[in-house]
Amino acid sequence: MMTRTRDIKILGFDVFGTVVDWRNSIARQSESFLKKYKIELDPFTFADEWRSRYQPSMEKIRSGERHWVPLNVLHRESLEEVLKGHGVDVHAIPDTELLALNRAWDHLEPWTDVREGLLRLKRCYPIVTISNGHVSGMIALARHAGLPWDAILGAEVSQNYKPQPQVYLTSAKLAGVLPQQLAMVAAHNDDLAAARSNGLITIFVRRPIEWGTSQTADLAPDEEWDVLAESLVDLADILNCPR
Amino acid sequence: MMTRTRDIKILGFDVFGTVVDWRNSIARQSESFLKKYKIELDPFTFADEWRSRYQPSMEKIRSGERHWVPLNVLHRESLEEVLKGHGVDVHAIPDTELLALNRAWDHLEPWTDVREGLLRLKRCYPIVTISNGHVSGMIALARHAGLPWDAILGAEVSQNYKPQPQVYLTSAKLAGVLPQQLAMVAAHNDDLAAARSNGLITIFVRRPIEWGTSQTADLAPDEEWDVLAESLVDLADILNCPR
Repeated sequence: MMTRTRDIKILGFDVFGTVVDWRNSIARQSESFLKKYKIELDPFTFADEWRSRYQPSMEKIRSGERHWVPLNVLHRESLEEVLKGHGVDVHAIPDTELLALNRAWDHLEPWTDVREGLLRLKRCYPIVTISNGHVSGMIALARHAGLPWDAILGAEVSQNYKPQPQVYLTSAKLAGVLPQQLAMVAAHNDDLAAARSNGLITIFVRRPIEWGTSQTADLAPDEEWDVLAESLVDLADILNCPR
Repeated sequence: MMTRTRDIKILGFDVFGTVVDWRNSIARQSESFLKKYKIELDPFTFADEWRSRYQPSMEKIRSGERHWVPLNVLHRESLEEVLKGHGVDVHAIPDTELLALNRAWDHLEPWTDVREGLLRLKRCYPIVTISNGHVSGMIALARHAGLPWDAILGAEVSQNYKPQPQVYLTSAKLAGVLPQQLAMVAAHNDDLAAARSNGLITIFVRRPIEWGTSQTADLAPDEEWDVLAESLVDLADILNCPR
């Protein structure tokens, strides 16, 4: 396991779920909206329903059926679908309010270990995003959550969505390293499986309450990933990055 | 002049010359190489000759005659041309040494006002690069010089070189703003002329010794740019970014 960590030249991070806690953040930011429009929905259920449309929303672009659109467009479409699914007339809601709610994804809170962990890891390696988030959303999120990225790579600069190979390979190319020198840091087994099949080093970070206390998926590594970390601080310890 | 500054949503920076002092840095890093290979050339002259091939080297890509290659490739070609021009047999020099010298562009020093200026400006606006430098070089340079960019935009993510419109427009698009909300910060009139013709807000920063004490170009604004600043600290004052 330790052999491959010696090859790491740069760390690429999944963001939603791995670095930031989208569920609690979206629930908190949706509460007043749901009340205002008398939508009888628990904010956590609302967050889960919105997020559950995330993977399917990217499928048409991955398959080539639809041209590239950035994640804020997909998030907005998913939001309207969720609302319609609960009988809400979205056209009766001012566009500015839907836009503001959609921007909740730019204002997520980091998991508690993230700021310390990233600061330490950044002393050892360049740290970049390899997220499906769009560049401007990643910029806003980094400023909100205090994430000191060296660069925003990932989906939009690759014009496709993970787990398409193009996203990992373009990100490595832009980062100026071989795929074998780029470590993908993620809390999701499918992300790491795709990263590995494209030659990347794989680092699993356990986030057992990303989907709340009844989470069933991604509780443990599906494969023997190159590194298993309990948090980003734990990862900094494993990689010997100074305090 | 002040009206347009109210529209600024993000600051995009030219880097070589505007943010970092390439001439002194390249001269200093070349000195031992020139001595070792007995190349009778003043390090500043060497730096000037290398840099003078920068604009011509991008022309074939701008014109479409040549496919995109990142700036480290062009810098390397220019380096070999300069050396050959002085009768050096470049094939007699180990590739690792040419590579290391070429990486001098990733290790340039910032002008003295830059760290304080960028930290202050970053409190008010996202700060991104809109440079012709390649992404991995910009990452390395930022880490070396302590430049707290929010994102690396510019040439490579646009697959063309300034002053091609594509670079300014793709950078604005990735930043999630209209060209009219993006301010180009540069010490070069031609960069700002292209930025303006694509709708961007223009900020001229005076760098009167970029080419040494006998510099003749870009000493003053050619047009009435939206803002004229003597340094990035001065720019932070002008834009009322807190200390």
